[in-house]
Amino acid sequence: MEHVTLEERKLVHKGSILDVYADTVRLPNGNIEHWDFVSHRKGAAAVLPVLEDGRVVLVHQYRHALERMTWEIPAGCRDSLTEDTAICAARELEEETGYRSEEITPLIKLRTTVAFCDEFIDVYLAKNLIPGEQRLDDAEEISVKAWEMKDLLEEIYAGRIQDSKTVSAIFAYQTKVLSQQA
Amino acid sequence: MEHVTLEERKLVHKGSILDVYADTVRLPNGNIEHWDFVSHRKGAAAVLPVLEDGRVVLVHQYRHALERMTWEIPAGCRDSLTEDTAICAARELEEETGYRSEEITPLIKLRTTVAFCDEFIDVYLAKNLIPGEQRLDDAEEISVKAWEMKDLLEEIYAGRIQDSKTVSAIFAYQTKVLSQQA
Repeated sequence: MEHVTLEERKLVHKGSILDVYADTVRLPNGNIEHWDFVSHRKGAAAVLPVLEDGRVVLVHQYRHALERMTWEIPAGCRDSLTEDTAICAARELEEETGYRSEEITPLIKLRTTVAFCDEFIDVYLAKNLIPGEQRLDDAEEISVKAWEMKDLLEEIYAGRIQDSKTVSAIFAYQTKVLSQQA
Repeated sequence: MEHVTLEERKLVHKGSILDVYADTVRLPNGNIEHWDFVSHRKGAAAVLPVLEDGRVVLVHQYRHALERMTWEIPAGCRDSLTEDTAICAARELEEETGYRSEEITPLIKLRTTVAFCDEFIDVYLAKNLIPGEQRLDDAEEISVKAWEMKDLLEEIYAGRIQDSKTVSAIFAYQTKVLSQQA
């Protein structure tokens, strides 16, 4: 099968976490088109923290891109291009929620929006949580809440939790738990 | 709670589907920072097509941003800022798979990557599928396959299906089915 091929790539914006390119591509039928490509330079990690009683810890924060508050699993960019995403996930967990975990295991791997962006998020599951202190950076004011799974599912189906990494992670965990009970 | 406030917004790239802005923001502690903001102008719709026997129809296509093939649910941008996403979902279903559906219902609502982008995808469930002909646009070479749910879950947990709208939609449907059986 013939694919889209890249004829020319022009960097149009070097941002704080993104590089934005104007690509000229050739379609399989020979036509030339101009496409956007956004490179999320470092990639990211996220973590679903689950308490002993089964409740899930989410963080509440203001999202500039949406101009509103969201409930999300803890997440953040890698510190460098070579950072292990498990290390990144453990750091974001502790910074945003105060919890440390003695058991961080891979859950799923995500690409957030494949039509124009290469961003990946490796999503981990954190159990055996040990309470501690949040260590937020300057930009963050984050509150933390432990949710019952049934309430989270209700929030998702009602469209009140929409963040794709959070939706994917909650379902991935719930499906695993249910399949182990079956 | 005090939030990040926008001090200045500068359009740095008007792309084919995206507008990219360099934002100057003031953090709650008074510090000034420069953040990227990507506006996905039109938003999008996606659809999980489920056959009578329970198999799920996915499309296989080349993704320029990832430089590889992906398995995904059918999806696409809205034609206009006012298009009903259910209409968009029905159109993308028929164009990419050939199937029409007599029963398209809302499943979940997603924000793909909230840290820097406002893109939304409304995800629908399509049943009562009627086979027909693909009608692909110039850029698309798409093959279609009906998957058993257990194989899809295996692909996701193995990290071979990563697209966030696809992962979310598959789990959202599977969780609903399992909860109705319980």
